[in-house]
Amino acid sequence: MGKLLVLTVLITIVGIATWCALPMLLPQSPPQLDANEWWGPMDMKGKVDASIKPFQVKFTEEMIKDLKNRLQNKRQLVPPLEGIGFEYGFNSKEIEPWAKYWSEEYKFGDREKFLNKFPQYKTNIQGLNIHFIRVKPQVQPGVTVVPLLLMHGWPGSVREFYEAIPLLTKPVSGYDFAFEVIVPSLPGYGFSDAAVRPGLGSAQIGVIFKNLMNRLGHKKFYIQGGDWGAIIASQMATMFQNDILGMHSNMLIVQTGCSTLKILVGALFPSLIVESHLADRMYPLWKYFSYLMEEFGYMHLQATKPDTVGVALSDSPTGLLSYILEKFSSWTRFEHRTLVNGGLTFRFSKDQLIDNLMVYWASNSITTSMRLYAENMSNKNRALDIDKFSTSVPAWALQAKNELFYQPPNILKHKYSNLLGVTVLDDGGHFIAFEMPKVFADDVFKAVKLFRDFHKTKTEL
Amino acid sequence: MGKLLVLTVLITIVGIATWCALPMLLPQSPPQLDANEWWGPMDMKGKVDASIKPFQVKFTEEMIKDLKNRLQNKRQLVPPLEGIGFEYGFNSKEIEPWAKYWSEEYKFGDREKFLNKFPQYKTNIQGLNIHFIRVKPQVQPGVTVVPLLLMHGWPGSVREFYEAIPLLTKPVSGYDFAFEVIVPSLPGYGFSDAAVRPGLGSAQIGVIFKNLMNRLGHKKFYIQGGDWGAIIASQMATMFQNDILGMHSNMLIVQTGCSTLKILVGALFPSLIVESHLADRMYPLWKYFSYLMEEFGYMHLQATKPDTVGVALSDSPTGLLSYILEKFSSWTRFEHRTLVNGGLTFRFSKDQLIDNLMVYWASNSITTSMRLYAENMSNKNRALDIDKFSTSVPAWALQAKNELFYQPPNILKHKYSNLLGVTVLDDGGHFIAFEMPKVFADDVFKAVKLFRDFHKTKTEL
Repeated sequence: MGKLLVLTVLITIVGIATWCALPMLLPQSPPQLDANEWWGPMDMKGKVDASIKPFQVKFTEEMIKDLKNRLQNKRQLVPPLEGIGFEYGFNSKEIEPWAKYWSEEYKFGDREKFLNKFPQYKTNIQGLNIHFIRVKPQVQPGVTVVPLLLMHGWPGSVREFYEAIPLLTKPVSGYDFAFEVIVPSLPGYGFSDAAVRPGLGSAQIGVIFKNLMNRLGHKKFYIQGGDWGAIIASQMATMFQNDILGMHSNMLIVQTGCSTLKILVGALFPSLIVESHLADRMYPLWKYFSYLMEEFGYMHLQATKPDTVGVALSDSPTGLLSYILEKFSSWTRFEHRTLVNGGLTFRFSKDQLIDNLMVYWASNSITTSMRLYAENMSNKNRALDIDKFSTSVPAWALQAKNELFYQPPNILKHKYSNLLGVTVLDDGGHFIAFEMPKVFADDVFKAVKLFRDFHKTKTEL
Repeated sequence: MGKLLVLTVLITIVGIATWCALPMLLPQSPPQLDANEWWGPMDMKGKVDASIKPFQVKFTEEMIKDLKNRLQNKRQLVPPLEGIGFEYGFNSKEIEPWAKYWSEEYKFGDREKFLNKFPQYKTNIQGLNIHFIRVKPQVQPGVTVVPLLLMHGWPGSVREFYEAIPLLTKPVSGYDFAFEVIVPSLPGYGFSDAAVRPGLGSAQIGVIFKNLMNRLGHKKFYIQGGDWGAIIASQMATMFQNDILGMHSNMLIVQTGCSTLKILVGALFPSLIVESHLADRMYPLWKYFSYLMEEFGYMHLQATKPDTVGVALSDSPTGLLSYILEKFSSWTRFEHRTLVNGGLTFRFSKDQLIDNLMVYWASNSITTSMRLYAENMSNKNRALDIDKFSTSVPAWALQAKNELFYQPPNILKHKYSNLLGVTVLDDGGHFIAFEMPKVFADDVFKAVKLFRDFHKTKTEL
């Protein structure tokens, strides 16, 4: 009986170790997705051209009038419970001032002009008209222009990058390069078409964006992303290891079985996997579970019934405001949930946040944006399991203090074998490009310099 | 080492058995809640009387006009994905016909009259004006009138019982009793006030309803409930074992540690805990988990951010329709989720379902109704752990084929020591009183007869 126990323990240890090491022991290729999968109406197949058409955001008079009507005629608000900030969700006391600002003070014409400040285009890829911003830098001879794909997430939009784009597209002293930035709206978000049939998850969006970059003449390029943009970036870096020159992520995570095991260990004994000054970024297990329960109801709903809640959110601007801005409150600073005003203007102006709402409202895209959760969690897409494959693409993580998830480098390296380093920020939240554009742009420059050095070293070897 | 293993196994078995038997070994009393806790505005404390005022539902011209405007000016709908029924939630193709019916064909005046067909009242209990229907039967001498409290859940209302009330309040041959029914709107639902501060969960509602019954002159009474009504009933039967004469539940469940253990065992090996012809009512473990994931996103959201989604649902009637009717689709027949029309009129008329929507819309109570999830899952209320205490109140379960949860009698008896039996229906769903009022009423008569016999036997002993 004693021998049996020893044998069991031994088999368990060897089993876990093998499971962790398996990706290295049996290197397999990540799945190859159909590069031409058609997501648009079938009767358009073969009938769309590959042209790139200029695009401008338009706030029509009709849309503005209807929106103002809805804001002004909003239904009587239900008072929040006594002594409550944002703990039960968006505090209804804050709806009135926001709705008033949106309908009476937000300058639709000026903001439309602002949203059109960068050149924008649409081009049809795999049946979908994909909207994107493209800004090329003016550079002196000797400064190289390098292409960079910037990818937003939910409930953000290309608007998140408006402050950072000028910083990325002008040369910075100390760097011999500047960026040509390409900033697409995810399919189903803002001014990009939504898929007409099920299946378009983050990996398939990665395929579309690679096709977009190729169409713009960029065979090889750098990528950056946060939220869904970070997931798409990670999957692109895994699927297209020869094409992605480097990946900068502000929400770098890995979800292999082995990393999950380590995270669980870390949740119980942080000191085993994280430096002591970062221990508070690893939640203890019970706290992590309660955090997931408290803050991820939206994800649960959107992964299962996006079309149900979408009806209300696309019909009610105050409803959309409440649903989206709640995330800009708690995802910027979790502790803002105790404030009656949600701390919304702590780092953002009302115009900035309403610009982002306008991208969803004007395009009526909240329902299709939420479907991405359902697509990504479908059995079919989960079976792709792209996360389990490692990538040799050089990577860099910007880790804001208040990001939703934190993983230390020793976990990240399970997947990102060439993780060149991380920037641990003692400030900032989930929408870091939007919140701290200078910090964000500086970090992207720093990372891409290291990616370029990495490739030079490899070539020299 | 061998001895150590045997010892470990033995300790484990004894431990689990003790844990299961603990409530019986160490009988404790369930927590005593404050019978006078004040849920209304503090400045009203001591200033409200105990009078019972007649009440009528009123659909004002202003409300109807505003509602029709909203329905007719609904925003352009986002098309569903190709080949999809209700799998992504409410199919937007169905919004148009429902909105048209609601705004153009639903006869507000007639339906208002219909909703006022039973005597209704309001009375202030613990600071909240509680709305209820009260119908007394006309009986011949020799027929006893027994009081029965009927409790609805979410997203239902008192409307669920309108077809059953006439069947319960007239004498039925073979029974020497008929019911006086009292049908309250839960606090925060329909025409009952909502709490103004946190904490009003299902157990506290049980206290309010007991006070209501006492005020109506009923010291001892029978109770019936489904959904939240079933939870409240179970907690009333636990907290007030001397006052509740019997409990009929159409969603009888128990959630002790030991019952959960048995359910997990049953999920792996159904034959161990359930008769073979009922094995398909116990989900295998993986299927149960995926069912919880797929169908309970609304609960996750409402338990955490009810106020956020409430803003949209109280502002948009099509949004409210989609959010509530999705549940009347899948909770009636789970397989209806593959239908484009959600099978909504399979058992319900459009008027029936819109009546129920009107209860939420006219009272603007969707936000406060959803807060019950948050209150019930607060740490404070979960700590009450009323479920772990057993009750000797005689109980009966009506188990519809398509109910959300199924537990066999041998699990239910962990808590309901006097479970007199169950009716296993091979038809029907979650809203059984609404869907099959005759079956429902017959079962309530049958159960209450057994409860009365049970008490007689006990008295005779």
